[in-house]
Amino acid sequence: MYVTLKQDVLDPQGKAIARASAQLGYESVKSVRQGKLFELELDAQDEPAARRLLDELSDKLLANPVIEDHRVVSIEN
Amino acid sequence: MYVTLKQDVLDPQGKAIARASAQLGYESVKSVRQGKLFELELDAQDEPAARRLLDELSDKLLANPVIEDHRVVSIEN
Amino acid sequence: MYVTLKQDVLDPQGKAIARASAQLGYESVKSVRQGKLFELELDAQDEPAARRLLDELSDKLLANPVIEDHRVVSIEN
Amino acid sequence: MYVTLKQDVLDPQGKAIARASAQLGYESVKSVRQGKLFELELDAQDEPAARRLLDELSDKLLANPVIEDHRVVSIEN
Repeated sequence: MYVTLKQDVLDPQGKAIARASAQLGYESVKSVRQGKLFELELDAQDEPAARRLLDELSDKLLANPVIEDHRVVSIEN
Repeated sequence: MYVTLKQDVLDPQGKAIARASAQLGYESVKSVRQGKLFELELDAQDEPAARRLLDELSDKLLANPVIEDHRVVSIEN
Repeated sequence: MYVTLKQDVLDPQGKAIARASAQLGYESVKSVRQGKLFELELDAQDEPAARRLLDELSDKLLANPVIEDHRVVSIEN
Repeated sequence: MYVTLKQDVLDPQGKAIARASAQLGYESVKSVRQGKLFELELDAQDEPAARRLLDELSDKLLANPVIEDHRVVSIEN
């Protein structure tokens, strides 16, 4: 699961990486946003149940919904 | 692009989240590993060129290859 | 220099650590807030100049002043 | 409490900030290392007890002692 700052929230760490890329000569880097990745191993009956669990965990434990979004990216069995 | 601690490197922040999940009653969470996500917007001629650029950036700027792995997860036009 | 979330901004990572402490039996941990530490080595004429430089860097590069505070903690020669 | 990468562990995020500072014209920034700050509120009988608790928490929950150091910076009543 990803947790990223909402689009309208300034991300200074991402900006610093974009500037550092320019300073290293990588002018083709247009923008960088930094987020968090959480890889969870869990027991769930099926994919919808896993997804519900991840949404709950995100709200209670992983993300601040005022400034951050979360996205579940893949569920493997 | 993801940057994650190598499998044999202890991840205390991931472990703390797993313990916190248990404390909240989510016993189905078996393990958590925390990593970093970098969303980059870049100019590149084609996908292999984009991938080469990301590999270089990772080595020079984003990851410590001694303790971390990186993975390019998707390239959209 | 420290960069911390403002007091009224929810800190899920800090909360997860507080819960994990409880789960480990450390009931004496009342709250945890997580922040970032930046250790900078710099050339500056005197302490006020160093402090001005750090305030500028914080605004431009290290912190998002809408959601974060920064604090310069010590300046050594 | 601070948790920082050991001196011999490469810190790409700190390096990126140093490069970004140079790119912004702040040539006086010689190096940057990034770490984590944990502000804990706790019940403890006295300062040595608080320090012991923090050392234990660090080992079990906050730091990876193979690659990171921790330092308790101040204890207020």
